[in-house]
Amino acid sequence: MGSAVDLGNNNMGEFKHLVIVKFREDVVVDEILKGLENLVAEIDAVKSFEWGQDLESQEMLRQGFTHVFVMTFDKREDYAVFQSHPKHQEFSAIFSAVIEKLVLLDFPPTLVKTPPKAAPPEAPPA
Amino acid sequence: MGSAVDLGNNNMGEFKHLVIVKFREDVVVDEILKGLENLVAEIDAVKSFEWGQDLESQEMLRQGFTHVFVMTFDKREDYAVFQSHPKHQEFSAIFSAVIEKLVLLDFPPTLVKTPPKAAPPEAPPA
Repeated sequence: MGSAVDLGNNNMGEFKHLVIVKFREDVVVDEILKGLENLVAEIDAVKSFEWGQDLESQEMLRQGFTHVFVMTFDKREDYAVFQSHPKHQEFSAIFSAVIEKLVLLDFPPTLVKTPPKAAPPEAPPA
Repeated sequence: MGSAVDLGNNNMGEFKHLVIVKFREDVVVDEILKGLENLVAEIDAVKSFEWGQDLESQEMLRQGFTHVFVMTFDKREDYAVFQSHPKHQEFSAIFSAVIEKLVLLDFPPTLVKTPPKAAPPEAPPA
């Protein structure tokens, strides 16, 4: 089959690091979140960081996973900087010890349907 | 342990629907992407839609998953509208037939590290 299909645009070279996890039962998740917050605050290469806890997916569909973490980088090279950063490596060791399972996906995001733009400021009266 | 910790802000009530999948081997992924693009274009409740294909995560860490799809809604109620929309239900049947496995997570996103704001427009000279 051909594929002369416009499948959206990459956001100017952005790169994302997605992690979904199931934590071990005895873990204080707030402490891990605080550690992640400190980590991304300390590493300039991380452009933005967002997380969430599943609220309503059926257990059959979420398969035990409960949390998602998404870091956004301006470019793939910045992700490489993050990966090799000593503070990231230090945190990874802590993180590995508190999770029961995880999936990682690293990808250039393609935005197909864009959020509506904010209205431009009103022009001053002529 | 206490948790007097500021763990970021929810983005004004936004809600996200995250899907990670492994497609069956004989699937033309571009056709599925085109179908998703049409779906989100037709349903106003979907505020934005982004997808990505993993480029570099180790197989041990991505566990066969290759693609991620993220839909953003202005509020949780809009996600409910999307879920019960006939076109979504129609597409879900097609989608289920082309995947080998998937995980869904539905969550209010919390933004901890915000992307830098664009510079404000320069003030006109006094």
